[in-house]
Amino acid sequence: MSFEWRAYLRDNYDTHLDELKEYLRIPSISALPDHNDDVRAAADWVAGKLRDAGFPEVEFISTDRNPIVYAHWHVDDNQPTVMIYGHYDVQPPDPLELWETPPFEPTERDGRLYARGASDDKGNSFATVKAIEALYKTDGQPPVNVKIFFEGEEEIGSPSMAPVIREHKDKLSCDFVISADGGMHAADQPSVTISSKGLAACQVNLKTAATDLHSGVHGANVPNAVQSLVELAATFHDDNHRITVEGFYDNVVDLTESDREDIAKVPYDEDAYKQMVGVSALKGETGYTPNERAWARPTLDINGFWGGFQGDGVKTVTPNEAHLKITCRLVPKQDPAEIVRLIEAHCQKHCPVGATVSVDPFPGQAFPFSISRDHPGLKTAMNVLEDMYDKDVLVTRIGGTVPVAELFQRELGSDMVFFSWGLPDNGMHAPNESYRLVDFQRMREGYCRYLQALAR
Amino acid sequence: MSFEWRAYLRDNYDTHLDELKEYLRIPSISALPDHNDDVRAAADWVAGKLRDAGFPEVEFISTDRNPIVYAHWHVDDNQPTVMIYGHYDVQPPDPLELWETPPFEPTERDGRLYARGASDDKGNSFATVKAIEALYKTDGQPPVNVKIFFEGEEEIGSPSMAPVIREHKDKLSCDFVISADGGMHAADQPSVTISSKGLAACQVNLKTAATDLHSGVHGANVPNAVQSLVELAATFHDDNHRITVEGFYDNVVDLTESDREDIAKVPYDEDAYKQMVGVSALKGETGYTPNERAWARPTLDINGFWGGFQGDGVKTVTPNEAHLKITCRLVPKQDPAEIVRLIEAHCQKHCPVGATVSVDPFPGQAFPFSISRDHPGLKTAMNVLEDMYDKDVLVTRIGGTVPVAELFQRELGSDMVFFSWGLPDNGMHAPNESYRLVDFQRMREGYCRYLQALAR
Repeated sequence: MSFEWRAYLRDNYDTHLDELKEYLRIPSISALPDHNDDVRAAADWVAGKLRDAGFPEVEFISTDRNPIVYAHWHVDDNQPTVMIYGHYDVQPPDPLELWETPPFEPTERDGRLYARGASDDKGNSFATVKAIEALYKTDGQPPVNVKIFFEGEEEIGSPSMAPVIREHKDKLSCDFVISADGGMHAADQPSVTISSKGLAACQVNLKTAATDLHSGVHGANVPNAVQSLVELAATFHDDNHRITVEGFYDNVVDLTESDREDIAKVPYDEDAYKQMVGVSALKGETGYTPNERAWARPTLDINGFWGGFQGDGVKTVTPNEAHLKITCRLVPKQDPAEIVRLIEAHCQKHCPVGATVSVDPFPGQAFPFSISRDHPGLKTAMNVLEDMYDKDVLVTRIGGTVPVAELFQRELGSDMVFFSWGLPDNGMHAPNESYRLVDFQRMREGYCRYLQALAR
Repeated sequence: MSFEWRAYLRDNYDTHLDELKEYLRIPSISALPDHNDDVRAAADWVAGKLRDAGFPEVEFISTDRNPIVYAHWHVDDNQPTVMIYGHYDVQPPDPLELWETPPFEPTERDGRLYARGASDDKGNSFATVKAIEALYKTDGQPPVNVKIFFEGEEEIGSPSMAPVIREHKDKLSCDFVISADGGMHAADQPSVTISSKGLAACQVNLKTAATDLHSGVHGANVPNAVQSLVELAATFHDDNHRITVEGFYDNVVDLTESDREDIAKVPYDEDAYKQMVGVSALKGETGYTPNERAWARPTLDINGFWGGFQGDGVKTVTPNEAHLKITCRLVPKQDPAEIVRLIEAHCQKHCPVGATVSVDPFPGQAFPFSISRDHPGLKTAMNVLEDMYDKDVLVTRIGGTVPVAELFQRELGSDMVFFSWGLPDNGMHAPNESYRLVDFQRMREGYCRYLQALAR
C-alpha cells in the first residue's frame, strides 16, 4: 500500500476534469422518455471508464427501464468487500431560461463547474472511478474488494431497484455499501449522514365538465376544474402547516430529546439560509426547528400544478380538467404505498362538488433509511474525514431520498455509509447546478484514503 | 322592395357555405402573437367579400393591433342607418387533442359545421354579408343605409375599440347597432338579448425563492410557490361561492323582483343542462337560480393555473413561481379597472408568508351593457323573429361579454340590438365548436327580413 496515488491525481487533474465534462454533456434525463437514448449513452460511457480504471469485470444488469452499470474487482478473500453506489441519470433541466450557461454544456466559473448533474450525481460518482483508477495505476489494484453499482433511475425514484437487488442478491453481496450520492454539511465542514427520507409520489387529476367551456355562458354555474383543484389542494395542510391527510402521521417515529439535541448541535444560520435561497421568510410545520423539519419531519409537497389556459393574453374559458403532482418526504416507519392510499382517500373525501378526482401513484416509492451511529464503516469514514479536514465531523441527516439505501439494507442486509461531497448551495435539481472543483479533488483523494483505511 | 332574395339564397347556399369554410380555414387567433398574419389575412378576406356584396365603400380602420373592417352603403337620406357589428378573430383552439376533426379544417357532420369560429363569430357575421349580397343581387341595394363594423380583437377583450370609436365618431354614427355576435336561447326558440356582462382580466404572478429547489433539501422550510398560490387562490370565494374580494359587490345593481320574474319565464331544465355540459352538479353563488347567476350576477373565474413541473413522471422540486389567470364577468355599475384594483389589493392582503405577488391587468376590459326593452329596433327584431318562427320571442340576457356594446352606447349614443344565432351547445371557446347549418340559412334570411322591416 503506497501513497503514490496523490501524485497521480495531481498530475491527471486536467484530464479527469475534461472527462467529467464529457460525461456531463450527455443529457441523461431519466424522467423524460425522449432522452432514453441519452440515458443509455451515459451508461455506456461510464462503463468504459470503469474498464479504463482497471475493473476486470464490468457489465450491465438490465432492468425494465435503464441498466445498472455494475463492476467487480475481487483482490483478496481476506479483505472486506464494499460496493460503491451512485447514479448516472440526471434531473430535467427546466426552467431552461434561468440557466446562465446551457445545462449540458459544462462551464467553469469562479472555481465551480456548472452543468446539470455536475454535483448530483455525475460529479460525485465519477470521482470514485478516478480514485480507483489512481490506485490501479500506482498500486496495481485497490486495497479492498470493490463492487460498483451505478443506477440510471435515481431521479425517478429508482423503480427497478427492488426486484433487481432481490434477483441479484448473491452478486451484490458486500459488507456494506458506500454511497457516492449524498452531501457534506458545508463547504469546509465534514459530516456524515445517518438517515435519509423516504418518498411517495402521485399525480392528482380532477375533472368537471365534458369539455372546456365559455366562461360567460357557463362559468357562473359549471364547476371550474382549476378552481375545484385549488379548493382540494388547499385542504392538504392546516394553518400550522401540518398535513391534514387522515392517518398521515400515524406511524411517524417522533424525535427523541437526544435526537433533537444532536440536531441542535449542527450550526444553522437562518438569515444566511434565507438569503441563499432568496426568501423573506421560512414556512414549515409549527413546533419544529428548520433542521428538524428538513431532516426528521415528513412533508407533502406540490411539485407542479396545471390546468386551463396558460398562453399569452386572455382566454375566457372555464377549464374542465386540472392536475397536480405531489411528492411526500417520509420518515422512519412511514410506508410510501400506504401514504399514497391515504392521499387518495383524502382526495375522494374532499372532492369538490361536481368534480371527479383520480390519483395515480408513481413508481419509485422509497422507504426512509437510517444507519446506526456505531457502524464500523461509518466510524472509519468519520476518521478519514477528520484527518483530511482536521475538524470534528458532524453527524447529520438528509431530507432528500436515496431510495436504494433502505433497499440494500432490507434485501442484502448491507448498511449504507454516505461518503460524498454534495453541498447545499450546489443547486441540485435547480437551474445552474454546480460542483466545487476543490470538492472534485477532495473526493478523488477521500476515496483513495477511505478504501486504504478499510483494508485490514 | 322584392322578396327575390329568397330564391337567391336558396340557389347560392352551397357557394355561400364553401365561402364560409374558406373563411374558417384562416386561423385568425387574436390571443396568440404567432397568428398576427392570419388575423390580417382574415381581415383582407372578409373585406373582399364585402366588396363582392356590393358595398361601394370598404376600408380598414387601423388600430394598435388588428384593423377594423369597415364598409358603408348609403342608399337614401330618408332611411335609417344601421351598423352591423361582428368580429373576424377567433379563440385559441387548445386543447387540440380534444378536437374530433382539426379546428381549422371545417367539417360537416350531422347537420353541423365544425371549426373554431364556426359559430363565434365567423359563421354568424358572414351570414350578414351574404344577406346583403342577396339584396344587392336581386334589388340592386339594401333597403336601409348599412354600415359594417367587423373587428379583430373581440376574443382578447376589444382593447382598441374605445379610442377608435371615439376617434371615428362621425364616420360610425348610426341610428343603432345590430350585433351579429350573440345568441338564441335554444335551437327552435327565438329570443332577444337585453344585456351582456362586462369583463375584467388579469394575471396573478407569485414568487418565493430565487430558483426552483430540491424538495428534499429545502421543501420542509422554503415556501412552495405553487402551494402558496393555491392558498391565495382559495381565498377568492367563500363557502357560498360568493366572491370575498373586498368591495367586489359594492356597485352591483341588485336584481329587482320584476327582473327575477322575467328570468324565471325562460324555460330552464337543470338536468338537461347538466347532461349537456357533462357535470354531476352545478356550483354557483348561493341564493340565485342558474339563469340569474349566468345572466345577472358577477363572477370571478380562474381560467388557468400553472407552476412547477408538468412533464411526465416525477420531479422532486419545490417550485419558486406560479401563475394564474383571472377573468371576472361583471354586471351593471361594476367598473372593470376598479375590479382589477380590488383583486390586486386582495392578493396583496392575502399574500402568503415568504411570497411576493404581482397582478398584471390585461387590456380589453369591458363595461357591462343593457338596452331598454322599449327600443324600436329591438321591437322590430322581435317582430321579425316571431314571424319567422311563429312563436313568442323570449327576452333573455347573456353571460358573455360583447365589449363594444357598451362602448357604442357610451361613445356614439347608439344602442345595440343583438340579432344573431349562436346556440348554447355550439361549443364556443371550447373544442369541437360547431354551427347548425339550418341557422346559417335562417340567419341569411333573417337579415334580409330585418333590414326590409326597418325600412320606412
